[in-house]
Amino acid sequence: MEPTRIFGIIGTPVAQVRSPEVFNDRFRRAGLDAVMVPLWVERDLADLLRALRAVRNLAGLIITVPHKPAATTAAVRLSHRAKLAGAANALRPVEGGWEADLFDGEGFVAGLRAHGAPLEGASCAIVGAGGAGSAIAVALLEHGAATLKLHDTNVSRAESLRDRLLAAFQVSVSIGVPDENCELVVNATPIGMEADDPLPLDLALLARTAWIADVIMKPATTRLLATAQASGHRVMAGRHMLDGQVSLLWDFFHLRPE
Amino acid sequence: MEPTRIFGIIGTPVAQVRSPEVFNDRFRRAGLDAVMVPLWVERDLADLLRALRAVRNLAGLIITVPHKPAATTAAVRLSHRAKLAGAANALRPVEGGWEADLFDGEGFVAGLRAHGAPLEGASCAIVGAGGAGSAIAVALLEHGAATLKLHDTNVSRAESLRDRLLAAFQVSVSIGVPDENCELVVNATPIGMEADDPLPLDLALLARTAWIADVIMKPATTRLLATAQASGHRVMAGRHMLDGQVSLLWDFFHLRPE
Repeated sequence: MEPTRIFGIIGTPVAQVRSPEVFNDRFRRAGLDAVMVPLWVERDLADLLRALRAVRNLAGLIITVPHKPAATTAAVRLSHRAKLAGAANALRPVEGGWEADLFDGEGFVAGLRAHGAPLEGASCAIVGAGGAGSAIAVALLEHGAATLKLHDTNVSRAESLRDRLLAAFQVSVSIGVPDENCELVVNATPIGMEADDPLPLDLALLARTAWIADVIMKPATTRLLATAQASGHRVMAGRHMLDGQVSLLWDFFHLRPE
Repeated sequence: MEPTRIFGIIGTPVAQVRSPEVFNDRFRRAGLDAVMVPLWVERDLADLLRALRAVRNLAGLIITVPHKPAATTAAVRLSHRAKLAGAANALRPVEGGWEADLFDGEGFVAGLRAHGAPLEGASCAIVGAGGAGSAIAVALLEHGAATLKLHDTNVSRAESLRDRLLAAFQVSVSIGVPDENCELVVNATPIGMEADDPLPLDLALLARTAWIADVIMKPATTRLLATAQASGHRVMAGRHMLDGQVSLLWDFFHLRPE
């Protein structure tokens, strides 16, 4: 008799995360004795991850804001894309610790493809060079984006990401706010989670034909997306980044049918 | 918006524990956004408990075999009965760590009362002087048992419990196997969880009028209870120890209606 397999999603805040709902529904439909719970963690992540390896039925963890960069240092094995992005959003138990990988970018790209948004050969821009922004940057370049513009109020964070990307890809990566040449503009900051947040970027600087994507999942339609849509832009909401990676996480967590 | 409150039950083995089913059903009926999950932990309990305080929505833990004694040392606050029994089965978060209490004995006594089994003024015997046995010993004496006989294959463990009880209660506590004078005989060992386990005590030594109680929850009817019942004894099954303490744990975890 095997105990219930436990999965967690670690972040702060964590009340808004959609993964438990999505995965628990999928566990139910698959007839699996498994459950995903949100774990609200602000600090001492490394200690917690080390100690959680003692929980033998803890079968995997999703890592979200603000812990994606720290999750890479807590891992004994790290995928190439996680290393490149400096961020991980999934951990699975292996001998001696955790193995880390990063599926945000792949999920985001799957969402773009499903929407028919520009990707191969496109001029792209990302606002926010944290965990989500880094993941999306790596995936956009891996899947053929032609140029990438990065903006972060923390300039050195943007520059650090640019330098890592330039070392890995033969494309143009620059620092600056999104402009009229961008065909795809991504908000990868948390700005927009609160109702009174300002817009994370200036839509007036963009071409009307530019696609606008947001990584925020709650609210489902951020003020950025609503405003962009009202101005004639095509948009992609944050939930598609999760929807696009559920199958990838499912495999990573060894949840194929048994 | 508050995240789901998480509760855990920590033990090994853990697949057989009934608490998640019992509590999750009660959470649902109470309309509470809360979930209890089993956590299979064999070692490094102290490190894990320390690290788990970083999980801000972890609202309480139930501790089961074999970690009840160790749970007392991991707590910054400890109830009198937990101190006396040298075991704790519930932890709740407090400033600086965990507060520990022990409800097994109270739950067991609630079960005895509901069954009309002997208690006040009764001659009792307990086989197994570990966490569950210690908890039941303290509660039986607190609720008026006249004499108590303790047996454990680990003699020094039985003697240690006897000495602590004699320091706290003005009653007769002795070491030895249950005999014909015992009105209530309790199996507080894990012997009986496996189908091919021997019986944990010799029913032939007992009076036919003696009550036999078991702390094992799965199987619901152990071979000890089935054999005792076939010999004319009245019996109480392990689940009543849990049923009797659910309300006490509910209050301890601050789960009163809000």
